Parts: sequence; C-alpha cells; structure tokens
Amino acid sequence: MRMSKLFARTLREAPAEADVASHKLLIRAAYIRKLMAGVYTWLPLGWRTIRKAERIIREEMDAAGGQEIRMPIVLPAEPWKATGRWQTYGELMFKLRDRHDRELGLGPTQEEVVTPLVAAEFTSYRDLPVNLYQIEWKYRDEFRPRFGLLRAREFLMKDVYSFDRDDRSMGASYEAMVDAYRKVFDRCGLDYRVVEGDPGEIGGDVNHEFIAVVSVGEDEFVYCENGDYAADLEAAMARPPAPAPPGDRGPMTPLDTPGRSSIQSVSELLGRPPAEMLKCILYDAGGRTVAVLIPGDREVNDDKVARVMWPAPVRLFEEDDFKARGLVKGFVGPQGLSDDVTIIADRSVRAGHDWVTGANAADRHVTGANLDRDFRVDRWEDVAQVREGDPCPRCGGTLGLARGMVLGHTYQLGTRYSKPLKATFVDEDGTEQPYEMGCYGIGVTRIVAAAAEQFNDDGGLKLPKALAPYEVVVIPTNMDLPAVVETAERLYAELAVLGLDVVLDDRADATAGVKFADADLIGFPIQVVIGKRGIESGKVDLKARATGERRQVPLEGAVQAAQDLLAGAP
Amino acid sequence: MRMSKLFARTLREAPAEADVASHKLLIRAAYIRKLMAGVYTWLPLGWRTIRKAERIIREEMDAAGGQEIRMPIVLPAEPWKATGRWQTYGELMFKLRDRHDRELGLGPTQEEVVTPLVAAEFTSYRDLPVNLYQIEWKYRDEFRPRFGLLRAREFLMKDVYSFDRDDRSMGASYEAMVDAYRKVFDRCGLDYRVVEGDPGEIGGDVNHEFIAVVSVGEDEFVYCENGDYAADLEAAMARPPAPAPPGDRGPMTPLDTPGRSSIQSVSELLGRPPAEMLKCILYDAGGRTVAVLIPGDREVNDDKVARVMWPAPVRLFEEDDFKARGLVKGFVGPQGLSDDVTIIADRSVRAGHDWVTGANAADRHVTGANLDRDFRVDRWEDVAQVREGDPCPRCGGTLGLARGMVLGHTYQLGTRYSKPLKATFVDEDGTEQPYEMGCYGIGVTRIVAAAAEQFNDDGGLKLPKALAPYEVVVIPTNMDLPAVVETAERLYAELAVLGLDVVLDDRADATAGVKFADADLIGFPIQVVIGKRGIESGKVDLKARATGERRQVPLEGAVQAAQDLLAGAP
Repeated sequence: MRMSKLFARTLREAPAEADVASHKLLIRAAYIRKLMAGVYTWLPLGWRTIRKAERIIREEMDAAGGQEIRMPIVLPAEPWKATGRWQTYGELMFKLRDRHDRELGLGPTQEEVVTPLVAAEFTSYRDLPVNLYQIEWKYRDEFRPRFGLLRAREFLMKDVYSFDRDDRSMGASYEAMVDAYRKVFDRCGLDYRVVEGDPGEIGGDVNHEFIAVVSVGEDEFVYCENGDYAADLEAAMARPPAPAPPGDRGPMTPLDTPGRSSIQSVSELLGRPPAEMLKCILYDAGGRTVAVLIPGDREVNDDKVARVMWPAPVRLFEEDDFKARGLVKGFVGPQGLSDDVTIIADRSVRAGHDWVTGANAADRHVTGANLDRDFRVDRWEDVAQVREGDPCPRCGGTLGLARGMVLGHTYQLGTRYSKPLKATFVDEDGTEQPYEMGCYGIGVTRIVAAAAEQFNDDGGLKLPKALAPYEVVVIPTNMDLPAVVETAERLYAELAVLGLDVVLDDRADATAGVKFADADLIGFPIQVVIGKRGIESGKVDLKARATGERRQVPLEGAVQAAQDLLAGAP
Repeated sequence: MRMSKLFARTLREAPAEADVASHKLLIRAAYIRKLMAGVYTWLPLGWRTIRKAERIIREEMDAAGGQEIRMPIVLPAEPWKATGRWQTYGELMFKLRDRHDRELGLGPTQEEVVTPLVAAEFTSYRDLPVNLYQIEWKYRDEFRPRFGLLRAREFLMKDVYSFDRDDRSMGASYEAMVDAYRKVFDRCGLDYRVVEGDPGEIGGDVNHEFIAVVSVGEDEFVYCENGDYAADLEAAMARPPAPAPPGDRGPMTPLDTPGRSSIQSVSELLGRPPAEMLKCILYDAGGRTVAVLIPGDREVNDDKVARVMWPAPVRLFEEDDFKARGLVKGFVGPQGLSDDVTIIADRSVRAGHDWVTGANAADRHVTGANLDRDFRVDRWEDVAQVREGDPCPRCGGTLGLARGMVLGHTYQLGTRYSKPLKATFVDEDGTEQPYEMGCYGIGVTRIVAAAAEQFNDDGGLKLPKALAPYEVVVIPTNMDLPAVVETAERLYAELAVLGLDVVLDDRADATAGVKFADADLIGFPIQVVIGKRGIESGKVDLKARATGERRQVPLEGAVQAAQDLLAGAP
C-alpha cells in the first residue's frame, strides 16, 4: 500500500470528547471515525487490525473444534420473551417493529437463536457435543456510551455456544474454550487476567472473565497477593471472619438518637466504631420485603443480593416502601421484623455481638442486640462488597484491587436457556433431556481498544505486530532525490514479495518529520528509513517502534535486517 | 472435517413454503435455516460458500484499488432525510428509535455514511480518486419476502463507493469496477449478462445490472438477437416506429360508446385494431396532473414515467382524482385538456394518425383525433414497456425477453448524493466542488442463491468448485471393514495435506446409499469412494459431481487422480 493512496488522514488533536488514550489515539491515527454516540466507522487501518484479530480467533476456534456459522442480527421477540431476557435487557436492547408490526430486536447475544437451531438438528446424544461460533456485530443501547470502543452500542463479538449431553461433558467443553481463549489473547500480545466473573444478564453458574489490565477500565477486579484467586468485584468473595466465641452478652437496651440516622452519626454519638453497628438494608424482591444485615463498616454488594434472590427482581426500598410497610428509614433493626420479611445476613455478621442497631422507631436505636436471642436470620449468604486488604477466600492472603476491561467472558450456562426454550435431545436411555450449554464471547473491537490502551506512548500507538495493520513502513525522506525514491521503491517491492504487510510512504508533499510522526502515531512495528546521507554511505536506518531500538544496516542486507528486527519485535 | 461432526443434517423434503429450486436445495442440503420471513441462519456448509465468495470479491476489489472499510449498520436518520431517501425508502427501511428517542435506520445501502466520511478526510483534488468498499449485512423490510435468498430482508452485500474529481475520471473508475465485477462473476462460474439498468431508489444516470440468467428470476430483461443491446425491462428501450407521413386527415367526429371504457371493447365496436386507439393514462405527479399518451396496443412503463417526472413523486390516478379534476375515467382523450395538464406522449404516438380516443364525456369517444390539429403534446419521451419482438434501439434487430436475478448493480451517481450532503473537495483552481461519485453493489448471498439455481439436478446441488463448501468428499462404504476405513482415513489425510478442502464421511450408522445421496445433495465437486471390492482389487472410484464423469483409478494414484479430476471440474 502506498501512503499517498491510503484512506487515512492522521489528526494532530483528538476530538474533545475522546476521554481515554485508546479512543484518542485510534481516532488520531485514522483507525476509526465516529458516526454517532457509541457507533463507529472502521477505516482501512483499523479494519485491517480487526481482520487480523478475527483471523487469530478463527484459527483458535477451528483448532478447538468450533464450527463457524452466521446468525441474523435482526431477531424475533418471541424466544427472548420465553427466556425472560426481553424484559431483563429492557432498554439495553434495541427494539423495533417491522412493517407488519412484528416485534424485533437487534441481538446483544444469540442464545435465543442458537438453542432452537441446535434442538432442530442435533436431536440425539450421539450428535453431541457440538460447538458453534460466529463473528458478528452485536447491539446494546447503552444509556451513556463512552470511552470509545469500550462502551459502544455497536461492537464486533465472537460468540461461541457449546451443547453437551451432561454436566461433566459441558465442563470439558468449557475448559477447552477457556484454553482456546488464553491462546487467542496470548497471540494478540495482550496483558490480561482470568478472573471469576459475575454472570450479569446472561445467567448461569460458573463463569470467567478475561480482563485486560488497564487503568481506565470500567471493571474492577480483586486478586490475591499469592496468585491463587482473582474475581470480578461484583462476584469477588473474601474469607469471612471467625464467628464470635460464645460468652456473656449484654441486655438489649433502647436509646434516644435524635436525628442520627446514619452509621457515622450514631458511631460518633456512642463513641463506638462502625464495625460494631449492624446495618439493616431493605429491598423489595418481587413484592416481598428482604432485610440484609451487614456490619456498619462494610457495604452490601447489590449484585450478590440480586443473585441470592434470583429470579425475583430486586430493588432497594424507596421512601414509599418504608411508609407502606410501617418501617422507619434510618432506624430499622432486625429485632421484631415480622415473619413475612426475609432476613439475610452476610457471613461476617457471625463475627459480632452486642450490636448497635435501629429500634424500628424514629430517632431510636438499641444497643446489645444479639443473634438468636433478639433477632433471627433466615439465610446466611455472602452479600458483602470485597475491599482491598480483605483476606483471600482460598488462602487468607491479602486481596488487592485493580481495574481492567473485559475482553472475553465464558459461562457454564447449564440448562438456563435449554429449559425455557424446550431444547432437548434424546439420551441413550430414550428420555428427553435439555442440553447442558456453555456460551463464550470475545469482544473483537475491544481487543483493539485494549491493545491501544496497553501499548502506546506520547508518539502514538505501538500495537503488537500480530495486530498492527501493517508490519513495516518504508520511508524515503528526500522525495526530490531519484536515488532515494528508487531505493525505497525497490525495498518496498522486495519486502512485499516476501509476504510482509508493507507500506511505502511515497507522499511527495510530506516532510520527513511528518512521515516520522505519522509512522509513530499509526504504529508500524518496523520503520525502514532511506535518506540522502544513507544513500551516499550505502546505509539504511531501521527502527523498532515498540522498543525504540534503532539499527543502521548496509543497504544490501536491509530487507533481511528488517525481517530480523520484526521477528524480535513484540 | 468429519461428516460425523459436521453441523449439517440434510433433509429429504424441503419445507412446503420453499418455492424455488435454490431455496429448496439450500435448505435440504443444510446450507441455511430460516429464522423468520426473509431472515436466515447460515450453517457451516453455507457459510463456507459465503466466505469463498467473499474472498473472491476481496481479491478483485483490492486488485482494482479498492480499500476495505466497515461502516455501521445502525444509522442516524438525519443524512437520509437530507438526501430524501428516508422518505423514498419509506417502509422498505427498518426504522427504530433509541432510548433517547433518536430516529435510526438499518442501512439498505450506505451512501449517506460514506459521503460525509470522505468529505471529512479527502478534501483536496490531489487525494482523488478514492475507492472504498465493505462487505456487510444490509436490510430491506420487504413487504413479502420470498424465493429464499432472492428477496430476503437481511442480506450480505459488498458495496463500493468511488469518489472522483470530475465526470471523466468517474467514468474511468466506473469502467474499472465493471471490469472487476465481470472478473468476480467469472471466477464464481456463474452464467450472467450485463444489462443497462433502472436506477430505482439509488438514483443517478448510467447504470448496469449483472443478471444471472435463471427462469425463476424476479427481474426481466431484454436482449437483442445480435448481442449489441441488453437492458432491464424497467429501463429497456425499443427503436420507435417511423413517424406517420403527412397526408389527408379525417375530421374529428364524436361517437356514442355506451359502457365501453376499455380499449378492447371500443376496438370491437368499431372493428378497428387497438393500435389505432390512443390511450390517455392519468397520473398525479406531486399534485400536478400528467396525461401519458400511448397507442392502445402498448403498455406504459410506470418506472419510466417516474424517471421523467423525477423528483416529483408519481402515482396513477385514483377514483377520487378523476372526480376532483372533472375527468371521466375510461373516456379521457388528450383533446381539450387544460393547460395545467402536462401531456407526455410516447415516441410511438408519432407513427399514428386519425386516432380513436376518449371524448372526455361519459360513454363517448371520438374518431379522427390528430396531433397538433386536435391535441397538443408537451413532451415526447420514451415511456413504453418494451415487448418481445420489438426492434433493437441500436441495430433494429429483434429483441428477446428473459428472466434473471440481479447479482450486481453499478451506478454512475454523479453528484446525486454529494450535493445534498454538501460533500465537496477543493479543486485545483481553489473552488469547492461536489465529488463525482459511483456506487456499486454485489449481493453476496444472492451469488449463492444464483449458483444453486443455475447448478443443480434431481440429486441436489452442484455448485462450481470455486463456491462449493468443500472440494472433495472421501466416502468409505463399508465402515465395518478396517481396511476400508484405514484407506479412507489415509486418503483423507493426504488430500488435506495437499491443502484441499476435504470431508471424510466417517458416519458409522449411515449406509453407502445415504452417503452417496448426501454427497450429491450437498454437492461436493469430487467424490472419492472406497469400498470392499475396491480394496480387494486395489481400486478407488472417483466421481465428478457436475459432469457425472466416473473414473476407476489405482489406489496408489488416487490422490493425484482426484486432484486432476478436480482441476478439470467446473
């Protein structure tokens, strides 16, 4: 490709709205252009990077036994209603009606398509397992698209679906995919962690996230200092403290606390630390009242509460709920809550006693509230938000907190979709069984964003060579000297013959400085520079973009030297 | 690929709704499955065929200087309103609103995206020409989707857009694309014609359609027996007859024709042929009345009338229109039409005289109506529907009529989009000029449908080898004989090592008959059959699917013989 023809105009400045490095640089380097909020056009440079990521993904999916198919983007609503996701996705799903007034959606994932598809074709246990994948655009109508490709409304995803006969076989299919995913991200040259994840709208049980470590990431995850545990913050657990030993307990005593409805203010009044207060948070779970107990120094993780109460929809109490159910906001305690309230306690509540908590009356608290004697717990669950410094659930080591962006997500779905969609096969014993499913996604456009976020400097992008749109740029610096131009043309032709992805910066009206700056900004892994002095001395300058390493080599061996430098580049 | 793993279950019967051979066979051979009306899932076999077509297209587009980009599917409404296509597409375009109530559409083509994109990047005449293409799914909410992939609502299209500095350069870009299109369809092995086309909703002037000749095609085209002219029926012209020589004309005489409002009935009453009647068809063109004159034995081509009156929207008169404008349906004649009626006559009207036509009163006609003396013509145009047997506009030879399906369409758009979208570049003289554009489309999914329609027999599909999902199938007929299975496995491995796309039909529970039938139905170009008798005699049977040619070859040379047979296959 000749730079003079390439549909790419680099920009000195990123648009003001570009808020993270990857977004700024991908626009400045002419990889992408915005069409509207969260929706981008891919220019030739960016699209080549996408196609390289696609090729890596296809090779690894095929090697792992995947078969490529292609499912529609525009989908009928009915199966989404059967699984309940038409409602749970809600406004996140783009919805429309066709001219015959039929309800349609744009697919955010495709379980509702692939499950009936397989059920119609592979009807015997002998057909299983089967693993089907596609690479296709997906849609989420994000309320606030931002961070460029990180939270887009249209994004390219590789989605795989596995169908197995039983749980054990499904586990094996799952492991094979996790392994293939590691190979994909390794080949892309990304810095990532595999963490235990939150299932979100997809559902299911075991799941893992492949998170690229980037400081601007929207996803927080915890990791153990000893490396034996990592999890998405929404799913992370800490080892619960040891239960309080039995012993004397003080009496439960009421206390006036006028206007003191917060943990902090009661703590100050009594001179006791927040950890000795018992917070009682109220939720509505499909019409039922749920009280969640947690020590005053910790926060409840709403995602965990939602999982505990699934499939009931869960929301925090609002003002009206308190009034309607005769409870006093800011002064609720678990003692004396009626039997129709489900009381869930975080496991850490076992470690305390003689709690300070609300007295269920305005401006009143109690001290000395004790489990069993003064209040009951219906269910013990892990509902606490993990904090930096908490003990690891595996080894007790210290947990740290980091940010990243999710590149891939793997789920053991079990029968979450096959049951409501009545997708069954005939097992060996003649019975109809629902498929045990797994689903797996890779954000292809996110791979590009993550690579841009992880590999850049003040000069621009330095994508790994596996993803860079071209591998080598040949830069003649003096376009008015025929010897320079001819030598550059010759090297360009020789590199192309060797099968390298090579660009010749043949722009006659660009200065050497502009060419160097563009080469750095776009991030060609290897730069081959031919100038007047080089021609006179028979030398060519090579530069490896990622490391900054420079070599001056004889013109005669320049092609081989460029190949060698590329082979050693990240 | 092993047939026992391939996600493909062939069907003995096509679903009742499948109405054409390609649709029936693509479903029976497990290439596609229907999700809903006009929307299909591509199974592994079909998807491989699509990917092969894509590769051919990419290679030819790149060779012709095209640069691949990727534009969004979900598009903002505003630029579509600027070009007027938001309205002209109407219900044909899928429309939706996002959660912030912004109007969006699913792209049927992408002029409204690519034009502003280029205008923002390539702003100087020195940047031009540029040619950008993409391969992406397109959407049309057809009122009645049918014929499987022929009239689908979601379809894969390769669209190219060229931007030039002036008309001459645009013409050169256009010729290069037409040439590249010929190469694509030649490589796909299709039987097609290049015909002059109707611009439809796209607009512009010169355009050509690449039509696959198939009897079930929705598109009719005419062609000259001498090969010098071919055109879509909607755009086709015939040589007009010679004008009538001057001479005596009879007087215009009114005549009672009670209840005879049709050409046929008046013709019978008077004993004069329909060719001597003058039809006067009324249209509303944006509120204005248009009368179209044509001899009674010919039909008006509404598409031509719409083009003549463009950009005014044109529709035939309805009952109310006749009443509102004081005209009598079935008895309209051009004489005495008021000045605010535009009278357009087909060029063939020049050939007649002493016309019989309506008297503009109920149950009355006139005879002896003559041009100029009795009625005026405001515009002479070609508005007649061409018929089989008409004279060729180029050479006067006889025109024939055939059916086909449009695979590709190329358009010289000129400034049809760049002007309303204010997409300009700075020309050499410093003035701002709108780009001269071309646009070009190939229906990728239609290529598969056309190939299936053109290449099949009672046994199933016989796609050209360039498009067939696999090139060779190895069929062991006796799965209980280890020597047969081992030999088949060895040939399968050897063919794969040579880089051929090969399938081993290793199904243990399928009879030889089932394997032969599936191989024919799916249409593997070469079948390599290994059975008991062959093993005993050291022979292998080869069959070329397209020609039915069979060869028995020695086992030792079987791989080479299969390759040779494939090389000679269509």
